[in-house]
Amino acid sequence: MRVVCAPDKLRGSLDAAQAAAALAAGVRAAGGTAVEHPLADGGEGSRATVQAALGGTLAQVDTVDALGRPMTAPVGLLDGGDAVIEAAETIGWEALATAGPDVLRASSAGLAPPLLAAVERGARRIVVFLGGTATMDGGTGLLAALGAELLDEAGNRLRGCGADLARIHTIDLAPARRRLSGVELLAAADVASPLFGPEGAAHVFGPQKGADPETVGLLDDGLRRLAPLLPGAATAEGAGAAGGLGAALIALGAELVAGAGLIRQLTRFEERLLTADLCLTAEGKVDAGSDAGKTTRGVVDACAAATVPCVVLGGTLSPGADLLYGRGATAVLPIGPGPRDLDTALRQAAADLTRTAYAVCRLAGAGVAAHPTRG
Amino acid sequence: MRVVCAPDKLRGSLDAAQAAAALAAGVRAAGGTAVEHPLADGGEGSRATVQAALGGTLAQVDTVDALGRPMTAPVGLLDGGDAVIEAAETIGWEALATAGPDVLRASSAGLAPPLLAAVERGARRIVVFLGGTATMDGGTGLLAALGAELLDEAGNRLRGCGADLARIHTIDLAPARRRLSGVELLAAADVASPLFGPEGAAHVFGPQKGADPETVGLLDDGLRRLAPLLPGAATAEGAGAAGGLGAALIALGAELVAGAGLIRQLTRFEERLLTADLCLTAEGKVDAGSDAGKTTRGVVDACAAATVPCVVLGGTLSPGADLLYGRGATAVLPIGPGPRDLDTALRQAAADLTRTAYAVCRLAGAGVAAHPTRG
Repeated sequence: MRVVCAPDKLRGSLDAAQAAAALAAGVRAAGGTAVEHPLADGGEGSRATVQAALGGTLAQVDTVDALGRPMTAPVGLLDGGDAVIEAAETIGWEALATAGPDVLRASSAGLAPPLLAAVERGARRIVVFLGGTATMDGGTGLLAALGAELLDEAGNRLRGCGADLARIHTIDLAPARRRLSGVELLAAADVASPLFGPEGAAHVFGPQKGADPETVGLLDDGLRRLAPLLPGAATAEGAGAAGGLGAALIALGAELVAGAGLIRQLTRFEERLLTADLCLTAEGKVDAGSDAGKTTRGVVDACAAATVPCVVLGGTLSPGADLLYGRGATAVLPIGPGPRDLDTALRQAAADLTRTAYAVCRLAGAGVAAHPTRG
Repeated sequence: MRVVCAPDKLRGSLDAAQAAAALAAGVRAAGGTAVEHPLADGGEGSRATVQAALGGTLAQVDTVDALGRPMTAPVGLLDGGDAVIEAAETIGWEALATAGPDVLRASSAGLAPPLLAAVERGARRIVVFLGGTATMDGGTGLLAALGAELLDEAGNRLRGCGADLARIHTIDLAPARRRLSGVELLAAADVASPLFGPEGAAHVFGPQKGADPETVGLLDDGLRRLAPLLPGAATAEGAGAAGGLGAALIALGAELVAGAGLIRQLTRFEERLLTADLCLTAEGKVDAGSDAGKTTRGVVDACAAATVPCVVLGGTLSPGADLLYGRGATAVLPIGPGPRDLDTALRQAAADLTRTAYAVCRLAGAGVAAHPTRG
């Protein structure tokens, strides 16, 4: 039995490669052949997951984090001319974790040096994984850092950050576009949120980035004001990804795609299914989330299309997880051995994945359906 | 796909019939044919489980609980001449729960009226399910209530209770035996504990019946003194069941058997497996317990013998649960959807069983093993 092990990360516990290895250990213990194929949804871990599959080299680029503090960030250079950059590896959550929430001040400017480094190194296409950033600046920090001219009504130049959104009056994108000319831009979102509005970046992701209700209102107003200045971004699905960074990239000519699908495509996941008898996927919390980037949902869909049985394992199954059956999941199962607290669950996830993968493979291979009903 | 649903109770949450119904709901939702076959291990719930399968009538008998308070207790009368009595339904835990722990005073005397009622109603065989009692009197209360003469060294008559054990000098069993003559006695234990010693009734079950370490020592000494007065009981496996009630029944001529096996036999479980494609069993906490009466282990063994794939579901999987694989279990899986507290788990067990049974049946029926590896 050949089993593709294609999990996302289990947030707070295992990255996708570790999760795949844990599943594979269970598959092998059950006598199956395991194929480790870690996945991601365009959010944190996406670049590393793609490079684990495709290799390439890594350049370290001097830049700043979301609060302007010096750091180096990785740029992945794949064979064939693609560069892969993960926003969270430059302007990610961690800046907030160590500096306290300051979402109005956070800026996406730090993403400019990695992008420019990829251009300098001859990338023909740059894939930017959105998601997991500390920012809510609509990508204005990035635009300014790339040379775009952001002016307030009085003609003062703005550097671009959440607080600046309320003041931006005009943006001249031409200088930024020039610096990226000749390069194809692909932005991969892990969410489908629009730039503003009740489902937009500020309302949906502001609170987890430290914004209180008043700040959420300010940021949403600002992103709404920004929208007409970013061609193509006003209503695009995913424009609100990474605090509106998606919108800025669209304005720079990027095609915005769902991260999960792109990563399946880049890593040739569907090819793997051609020789699979079973697919195991996993994530920390399984739900039926409408997020465009959901890895699990995409795996279920791909398996359904390929008529490969697919078992979804989760640290937590939310009530909506059962909706995955409607998309063709063969089984949706939890991994935890019983009542316990979340910390314990996070610590034991690898062993739980292995144990559950073992049970699933034994059951799948038991041949229950292989003979007609005996009665 | 025909699926036998054969769980034990999930203690504190569902009785075995409720658990079987919850499993069956999942099986049917997955398109399978469910056969509900609740089981028990000789402990609490055993009489009701047997009568759910075999029917018969119920007599209500006036008696007393383990602390001497008046109550009525059920005696099951099966077609064919068997009577079924559950010790826990007369002298069970509940007496302690409402009166506070008083294990030295607790007596098995209350079991005599149900036994005698079964004899009066013409039972040719009486099955007594041990386990779950509040007593630790070595069955001396029952013996005295049946007419046996228990004397201390000075010739004073004793009524029989945990505290009396230290004083019993002689027992004349003949009057008690006479009252049960012509009736076959079968005692079904849910544990394999001997009467006394480190693995005996007092040390293993005394603490959960309210005995402090000093009382445990007193009771163990008393049961050790009692052993030579109860022919056949000194070293018998299961003699320590129900606070030593097993030993007294052996002395009265009972055959002592493992409850789980007896209940499988009485309910014709093995016949059910002949037409089964899959068996689901479940219990609250799955471990590899060496208890003779373990339902789950017996189901796994029976399925292995019948070459029916068997999936064990548990509210909690203890680390030893994996040892069931060595006995032939196809899969051992948890039912809880994620980290949570025990109370929540107990409340949601039925829905969890249904959801997991559904997933298991879909996976078992997915035909993963039905075709050769595609690669």
